[in-house]
Amino acid sequence: MSRFFLVLTGGIGGAKLCLGLQRILPAESLRIAVNVGDDFEHLGLRICPDLDTTIYTLGGLANTEFGWGRRDETWTFMKVLENLGGESWFRLGDGDLALHVERTRRLLRGETLSYIMSDVASRLGVRCEVFPVSDDILSTVVVTAGGELEFQDYFVRCRCVPVISGLRFRGAERAGLAEPVVAALDSPDLGGIIIAPSNPYLSIDPILAVPQMRSRLERRQVPAIAVTPIIGGAAVKGPAAKIMKELGIEVSAGSIVEHYRGLIDGFVLDSRDAPLAEHIDIEVRICDTLMNTLEDRDRVARTVAEFGRQLRR
Amino acid sequence: MSRFFLVLTGGIGGAKLCLGLQRILPAESLRIAVNVGDDFEHLGLRICPDLDTTIYTLGGLANTEFGWGRRDETWTFMKVLENLGGESWFRLGDGDLALHVERTRRLLRGETLSYIMSDVASRLGVRCEVFPVSDDILSTVVVTAGGELEFQDYFVRCRCVPVISGLRFRGAERAGLAEPVVAALDSPDLGGIIIAPSNPYLSIDPILAVPQMRSRLERRQVPAIAVTPIIGGAAVKGPAAKIMKELGIEVSAGSIVEHYRGLIDGFVLDSRDAPLAEHIDIEVRICDTLMNTLEDRDRVARTVAEFGRQLRR
Repeated sequence: MSRFFLVLTGGIGGAKLCLGLQRILPAESLRIAVNVGDDFEHLGLRICPDLDTTIYTLGGLANTEFGWGRRDETWTFMKVLENLGGESWFRLGDGDLALHVERTRRLLRGETLSYIMSDVASRLGVRCEVFPVSDDILSTVVVTAGGELEFQDYFVRCRCVPVISGLRFRGAERAGLAEPVVAALDSPDLGGIIIAPSNPYLSIDPILAVPQMRSRLERRQVPAIAVTPIIGGAAVKGPAAKIMKELGIEVSAGSIVEHYRGLIDGFVLDSRDAPLAEHIDIEVRICDTLMNTLEDRDRVARTVAEFGRQLRR
Repeated sequence: MSRFFLVLTGGIGGAKLCLGLQRILPAESLRIAVNVGDDFEHLGLRICPDLDTTIYTLGGLANTEFGWGRRDETWTFMKVLENLGGESWFRLGDGDLALHVERTRRLLRGETLSYIMSDVASRLGVRCEVFPVSDDILSTVVVTAGGELEFQDYFVRCRCVPVISGLRFRGAERAGLAEPVVAALDSPDLGGIIIAPSNPYLSIDPILAVPQMRSRLERRQVPAIAVTPIIGGAAVKGPAAKIMKELGIEVSAGSIVEHYRGLIDGFVLDSRDAPLAEHIDIEVRICDTLMNTLEDRDRVARTVAEFGRQLRR
């Protein structure tokens, strides 16, 4: 068996890189560990936005217009729920709902989240392995001047408007790594670790907050690479830049390198930020990291995979 | 306030009469107590087929083509659930699902079924009061030569094919009447009780199995009327005739009168069975009870309401 990469990822940006990697690598050369800090209970259902976005993207089922949910979706459930006076701030498509209902039912039956999602991914046509970083409950909590907000209250209900003064990951200190994550990290075939261009504070930090994950990354025997989520002093999408400003961090690729200090050996910098390369004291590759088209995804994936192989030597 | 009728009803046939009664009576002159023996847990959701059929019918939302579920329905949830390997033998439309999800959520929050369904009925445009006969769990169990079957396993999964040797109502002996049922039965304005032309064994018997219901009906101070579910020796719809044969009961309107012995003062016989009237020893009205059109529903409703007023004198 060939070497494989283990990707740590969150939402949309990370899923784009994962799709590129799935397209250019054999299925067995890619395993993906996904953030669970966004997961929450809603309408009695367990909802896992990042896992679902990753699986829908890799299965070719994602709604690329919205950036979340499924394509060819219908919205009858939501319309009737509104008529019934139910909570409608979190939009759930009819097809998307099937995954939430089935996942909740199987969790209540005692199956682990990683087992369920691995099965779901395979049923939905995903060829590589996708799993949650943890089977335990680990919830991102946003600290604001007005008090603490549950992640989806911040992200969806309040549309990221509240000013963040900090973040904490409730349950992280007691959370263990899911079995497929341990298997990947323990495997002699692990060839490298890739931190996707996801939001470092909202998507990657909850992964690193699992104590075993951080300590294993610190003691890694294989190269680890991060791909920049910041291009020219701005986030490609989402609130990363806004959060960095609120936390008093300079919005630059250099701050991301600093953020992952001790956990990475290489950094993929955007070509627009090429002049910054000389200030970065780890290995750097420069690449146009903006991923609008499928070809863009393939290009960034190739750069990252090649970078990983080079660092391994 | 004028006198009101309390209707005991189950599924489709009963809902047709209820719709007629809602059309010809002022809203405050009609209260409807619905069977809960068909209710079950499925996919982690509480599903109440008879309550929902009644409410959809009275709200003008019923799928009259199927005889169950909502009109203008979409089926994306079911399609995706099948892809995920979920249980798909019980068909749940996307809009229908909203009611199951919202009901389950509210039940888990501690609201009673009768409170929730009364709210749902009003939100969906139902003008009269509709409530479950009991807020407790009471489940119809079908006894067959091959063992016991849960009701929906018999009714939907096995399409009523297994031969019935008996029925029992699990939980009935401990079940109480829902508060609105007690209020209706205790009200000085109660003017009569109507047993709808629902399946006596599957839809009405679970209602009568609540000990307080049967004893209160036996001690009633107002007239009670049953409408025949049998026309010319056959059931209008559903397995009533098949069940009667299997239980060794003659398939005739007379058997229905016998079944309700002591609980009714009047019986509405179908005009096709008019010759049977002389063999029935309680008050009888003869009427074309087949309800295909809205006018049919109004006609049967008028006959029943007028019959009730006459018996009251």
